[in-house]
Amino acid sequence: VAAVSDSVHKRSQMAVREEKKQKTRSALLDAALAVMSRGGGFGALGLRELTREAGVVPTAFYRHFKDMDELGLALVEEGCTTLRQILRDVRIEAAGAGSGDLALERSVASFVSYVDAHGAILEFFVRERSGPSLTLRSAITSEQRGFARELANDLRLFSPFGDFSDEDLEIVSELIVNAVVAHLIELLLPADEAPARDVVITSRIEAQIRIILLGAARWRRATTMPVKST
Amino acid sequence: VAAVSDSVHKRSQMAVREEKKQKTRSALLDAALAVMSRGGGFGALGLRELTREAGVVPTAFYRHFKDMDELGLALVEEGCTTLRQILRDVRIEAAGAGSGDLALERSVASFVSYVDAHGAILEFFVRERSGPSLTLRSAITSEQRGFARELANDLRLFSPFGDFSDEDLEIVSELIVNAVVAHLIELLLPADEAPARDVVITSRIEAQIRIILLGAARWRRATTMPVKST
Repeated sequence: VAAVSDSVHKRSQMAVREEKKQKTRSALLDAALAVMSRGGGFGALGLRELTREAGVVPTAFYRHFKDMDELGLALVEEGCTTLRQILRDVRIEAAGAGSGDLALERSVASFVSYVDAHGAILEFFVRERSGPSLTLRSAITSEQRGFARELANDLRLFSPFGDFSDEDLEIVSELIVNAVVAHLIELLLPADEAPARDVVITSRIEAQIRIILLGAARWRRATTMPVKST
Repeated sequence: VAAVSDSVHKRSQMAVREEKKQKTRSALLDAALAVMSRGGGFGALGLRELTREAGVVPTAFYRHFKDMDELGLALVEEGCTTLRQILRDVRIEAAGAGSGDLALERSVASFVSYVDAHGAILEFFVRERSGPSLTLRSAITSEQRGFARELANDLRLFSPFGDFSDEDLEIVSELIVNAVVAHLIELLLPADEAPARDVVITSRIEAQIRIILLGAARWRRATTMPVKST
């Protein structure tokens, strides 16, 4: 009995330690966002300022991350994983209900409210996408490709995209992702009238995605542009 | 005669001085790009490093720019003015030849070769678009709106866009500009096989603009999305 109780005790000690470790890791990630939001990009992030903000000793950093780039990559992943899941759920549910319109409207609404709730991490994402760290740039580019790939998969659920080649569907979904991401900078600007602004941007993103989907449905049949000079 | 000769001499002295002033200004702008290309964004740009690079004394800076932001704004303007003119010329010439296809292909080709030839300034543009200086952010955003506005004007030359409302045409042209700008980051990445990469990106941008134009031509008539679940 004593041995079992010992082992239980050990396991619970381990659980506590693991929980504490996760807490410090989160604190470091949050501290990084807080420090960056006071100006200066990821490149200007210093170990001392970061750990002071997180309330841990400088050496504690290395128990969680090999270097600053690894922390940056963790931020990229954290910022994208949840949003990707939300968008996939929305699309699959709407596909089940048989409505492309629903998928479109709910996806855009989910995106805009995600941006409002997670401004700091998306600010980091937008900035480091063209920032000085090539590691972060390529991580962010590949996350964005991941969004496009998942969108392409889900577009197949809707006619006429089921018949599209992978390559064609990739061109369409990349275009949609880029069109949405382009509005991030505007959505992240501090604004006194954010709710009104969000409504305008939401309807603009919706219109632009509609244009893309309408065009994509006709595109494969056309070999030249349909517009002619007047 | 002596008085006239004196005045001619004075004027030529002024011309020389003006020329020298322009030369120093250009040197400062080039130096800013050179310093930034070695890492660190606009926010990290220091007066001493900048003037040393330009080969002038630090105080010379203030004969050309009120502060660093003013230099940044001059860079934004310089990076955009030439490209805007090139794109307008291409579109108007193609409209004269009555070919939307020609306008599209030549515009994309001009854009891609402009990026190849002016990497440093476009790198600055892309980075500061989401950088820490709100002055630069909004200057770059408004340049991008300028591109979209000019594109909207030129789209009117092609059917069916002549009949579009200003607002609808703005949504279409913003979408096109965003779709093109989204490829900037990729075009700016150092690559061993830049020519081959440029061909791939060029055809991708062309396809995406075709999709947008095809969709836009149908869009106003549609109130809901044409896709249905299979």
